[in-house]
Amino acid sequence: MRLYSASRAPNPRRVLIYLAEKGLSLPIEEVDLGALEQRSAEFTALNPFQRTPVLVLDDGTVICESIAICRYFEELHPEPPLFGVGAVGRAMVEMWQRRLELGLLLHVANAFRHAHPYMAEMEVPQIAELARVSPAKALDAMAIIDRELRDREFIAGERFSVADITGLVALDFTRPARIEIPEEFGNLRRWREALAARPSAKAAPV
Amino acid sequence: MRLYSASRAPNPRRVLIYLAEKGLSLPIEEVDLGALEQRSAEFTALNPFQRTPVLVLDDGTVICESIAICRYFEELHPEPPLFGVGAVGRAMVEMWQRRLELGLLLHVANAFRHAHPYMAEMEVPQIAELARVSPAKALDAMAIIDRELRDREFIAGERFSVADITGLVALDFTRPARIEIPEEFGNLRRWREALAARPSAKAAPV
Repeated sequence: MRLYSASRAPNPRRVLIYLAEKGLSLPIEEVDLGALEQRSAEFTALNPFQRTPVLVLDDGTVICESIAICRYFEELHPEPPLFGVGAVGRAMVEMWQRRLELGLLLHVANAFRHAHPYMAEMEVPQIAELARVSPAKALDAMAIIDRELRDREFIAGERFSVADITGLVALDFTRPARIEIPEEFGNLRRWREALAARPSAKAAPV
Repeated sequence: MRLYSASRAPNPRRVLIYLAEKGLSLPIEEVDLGALEQRSAEFTALNPFQRTPVLVLDDGTVICESIAICRYFEELHPEPPLFGVGAVGRAMVEMWQRRLELGLLLHVANAFRHAHPYMAEMEVPQIAELARVSPAKALDAMAIIDRELRDREFIAGERFSVADITGLVALDFTRPARIEIPEEFGNLRRWREALAARPSAKAAPV
């Protein structure tokens, strides 16, 4: 088994944090995104969408997409449950995972991808106006998340879950995206600090 | 139990097709997106992200996000399995659901949302350049999907799944988005026609 990862990129980082939470480790093959290794014939044969992370099983089965890789490991190693418990619990994790990915991480990523010189060859064309409006959309989501966190420790309920992982990765990615997290979002900041203090976050440093 | 839906919008449609595949029906409350009902105080209290669909359970629990709602019903009604079988099977459905949503539906939706006058008040600001480049990104994804469908009936393997539902909804949404599906994508067209011929597609007409 082998994981194709790219250090510091948000999606591989979600898998690395997940694996650390589960106490799992596996051989990592680093893909150099800056050198466009994800567009090589070899990597494209693994993932025609040319994205990391990619998990290759011993029988050659290829699993792409961060959350799909996490779900695969969740089936093999169900404890501790990181995708929720029970029908409502699982729905809540899915709901918050999606909200944090589509409502927050996507906007933070757009602010970075459509503005940063590093992305000039990867995001074609970079759309300056999209980069310009994305931070405000990310802040709108943060305001909602801050209110939700008023009376709970984790975003999807009483347990740490993959939704928290997506949240931490999105908030950490505000730095290269040059989005400032307002001081007034006290619940959000407390949540982020608690997540960043977990050993799993240190296993996949930004 | 009650489902807040918006007819013809892609995300509620995914849930309606899913429910039809499961043989489930429930009371539907129509949200008039054109009249911006999703921004009312009442609806915002249900979903601060102001998006449909929303499922409200009898005990008042609110589940937002199309795929989260489907997963809730999957737990209660596991047959026929629409989220895959086994660790690899479940990972494949998640992988393809995400690829079809983030690699295809998102671009089709951007082509519509950032260009159509109907969206002027909902997508602020509309970014003309994003609308302009999105069809090519959708076509790139279609080319990959077409190759994948060369030797299988459903996108995630041998069984129909939620990934197929996302695919059908994305392809159907090319029409309001004014994206033409090229004749040369024969496998993709055959797949779409087979999905559109299922009774579930007729239960949620475009």
